[in-house]
Amino acid sequence: MQGWPFELTPEQEISSRIGALRRRMELEGVEVALVLQNVDLFYFAGTLQRGYLVIPLEEEPAFFVQQDYGRAKGESPLKVEKVKGLGELEDFGPFRVARRVGVELDVLPVSLFRKMERAFGGKEWVDISKEILAVRARKSPFEIEQLRRSAEIVDHVFSKVPELLREGMTELELDALLQAEGRRRGHQGWLRMRGFNQEMPNISVMAGESGAAPSYTDTPLKGYGVTHAIAQGASWRKIGRDEPVVVDYGGGYNGYTTDETRTFVIGRLPPHLQRAYEVALEVLETFEEHAKEGVNGREIYRLCWEVVQRRGLEGHFMGYEDSKVKFIGHGIGLEINERPIIASGRDEVLEEGMVLAVEPKFVFPAEGAVGVEADYVVRKEGVERLSTFPLELLFL
Amino acid sequence: MQGWPFELTPEQEISSRIGALRRRMELEGVEVALVLQNVDLFYFAGTLQRGYLVIPLEEEPAFFVQQDYGRAKGESPLKVEKVKGLGELEDFGPFRVARRVGVELDVLPVSLFRKMERAFGGKEWVDISKEILAVRARKSPFEIEQLRRSAEIVDHVFSKVPELLREGMTELELDALLQAEGRRRGHQGWLRMRGFNQEMPNISVMAGESGAAPSYTDTPLKGYGVTHAIAQGASWRKIGRDEPVVVDYGGGYNGYTTDETRTFVIGRLPPHLQRAYEVALEVLETFEEHAKEGVNGREIYRLCWEVVQRRGLEGHFMGYEDSKVKFIGHGIGLEINERPIIASGRDEVLEEGMVLAVEPKFVFPAEGAVGVEADYVVRKEGVERLSTFPLELLFL
Repeated sequence: MQGWPFELTPEQEISSRIGALRRRMELEGVEVALVLQNVDLFYFAGTLQRGYLVIPLEEEPAFFVQQDYGRAKGESPLKVEKVKGLGELEDFGPFRVARRVGVELDVLPVSLFRKMERAFGGKEWVDISKEILAVRARKSPFEIEQLRRSAEIVDHVFSKVPELLREGMTELELDALLQAEGRRRGHQGWLRMRGFNQEMPNISVMAGESGAAPSYTDTPLKGYGVTHAIAQGASWRKIGRDEPVVVDYGGGYNGYTTDETRTFVIGRLPPHLQRAYEVALEVLETFEEHAKEGVNGREIYRLCWEVVQRRGLEGHFMGYEDSKVKFIGHGIGLEINERPIIASGRDEVLEEGMVLAVEPKFVFPAEGAVGVEADYVVRKEGVERLSTFPLELLFL
Repeated sequence: MQGWPFELTPEQEISSRIGALRRRMELEGVEVALVLQNVDLFYFAGTLQRGYLVIPLEEEPAFFVQQDYGRAKGESPLKVEKVKGLGELEDFGPFRVARRVGVELDVLPVSLFRKMERAFGGKEWVDISKEILAVRARKSPFEIEQLRRSAEIVDHVFSKVPELLREGMTELELDALLQAEGRRRGHQGWLRMRGFNQEMPNISVMAGESGAAPSYTDTPLKGYGVTHAIAQGASWRKIGRDEPVVVDYGGGYNGYTTDETRTFVIGRLPPHLQRAYEVALEVLETFEEHAKEGVNGREIYRLCWEVVQRRGLEGHFMGYEDSKVKFIGHGIGLEINERPIIASGRDEVLEEGMVLAVEPKFVFPAEGAVGVEADYVVRKEGVERLSTFPLELLFL
């Protein structure tokens, strides 16, 4: 098959991830982890095939696959066994004898969980989603390389905007053309967001007042969408001159999601919007100056907020009135809403290898939004940008 | 705003949907339904905004919105109230006094459910997902109209294949170009699939042996994907002459998903694959001849299977060996895996207004797949196709 083999997850990666999880399991007194969510499976087993991954504290882990056994065996460095259903886990000694079993209660549906409770009596089920997410928050050099390739897709797509954006086209049309550019360069197809009811587009194109559209999403900008059944992203609105055109795009490479935003303008921007964009860049510089291993996100947020206050833009920062969001940065990786979260009053200390998107944005009701978003790797002495596309406003 | 207003769900639709749910709630002794999943919210409240929809058996329903209140109020014909969190539901009399509360336990995560249990003592939580899905299975004329527009997007995209498909291009590139065609025509952006770990692309392009790629999905054809982190859909494989190019595409209009497949060929097809495609068409004709209100899906499946057996293609029908799926048809609507399911040994009687995709496909290991998929509305006297694009093999 052309295109095979994929860049599989190295065995060393998998064993170090499992090692990190085991250290946290031990602290929680969890004897065995039962991993079921597709993204967590991919992270710990190196395959997205359907099955049950059992990670005992000490014995060898095993991936019990329902479908497809051959593909799972070819992709995962772990021991892979074929099963018909959940019940067969009882045949696996380390699972059978374990009393405290860790599961992903943040995403497991109640019906499925009850089926598990019925199938295996006498076990205590412990939520280990926080432990899993803590392990996933620190990226290895291999993961950072995947994120870098994901950012290359973003760079490519942004670089196409000057050629493709024309006055009078709809947001939807620019969305379609840019997504096609990303896809043919190998975009994996979609981005993943953890949690109930969480969904998002690969790209949001918002021109003029679309950038201030109200909606349900926990993002500073939302977009109208082409239907209230989606209620976010590009709409049928036509793109005009002298207004901000915000393009928020996420790359997807080998499972890894990036998330960047640029603002483009055909013509000129009203001075107060241009000023706001400059403040967004100043906020980003403030982040770049202070962020490094060991710094608390709460402190970074405070410093950024001071910049916004000094410029008198508090009322527009990260939304307006009820629609304001509390964060300016969020972790990215296999999902787009990972740790760390850099938010008002939230203690979260940066660690080396964390990767996050920082997105200072300003929203002006009925007028639109301007802003920027860039992805960074946290290092001992500072942060390192993933993409290379310029951060400045781009006038066409 | 250009593009506003969206085609909102009429008040009459909402009240008849709620009426149908109440009849089923009554049979189950459920005093109040608490609807939380985004698709179910959209169905019963006419908006996707974030909140809690409470439907008492007799009193007026109310949608308690967290975000965005204004947008929800503009989109929903129901009573909309602003809340900060779940706890405020206690202030709503019909919810407070209800003992048996219906919830969507097939999709509600355990953590969220436990939070609800803690917030509201003394209630009995009853799974009403089956009742909700039964109500949603029968589409109204308004819904069928949305599905028809969704099918128009599919027709448009298929009609572009002869112009866009060229020998030597990758599956990925054809995917990118066709998705862009659908998106600029108003495709909503993505398709929804109910359940844990369920996800799918808008389009799958599979050429030659890609059609026989193994993977985890519960579909007859899977595709390699561009990465094992996605493990389905188009890959980097180049499209050649004299091999089947299967295009499986789902329209998305105002929330409503269609799902159709055609097979294209540059040049000629090996005779055994061409014969298999003709059998696929014969199976589809068998479905068209026998399907109508009151007929059991089990009987339809049996008749289709007889055609396959008569032609000696049992080993290739709907997959091969372990990768075979048991269904040949599935309901479509706001989600792509709705009722009814037409499957081996499954009793499910067709009702007027049900809409389903029927997809006879044949898979030849290491060679590829051929097949067709078309969407139908069930009527009293037969079935009615949604799309107009020809069902035949298309030679280029």
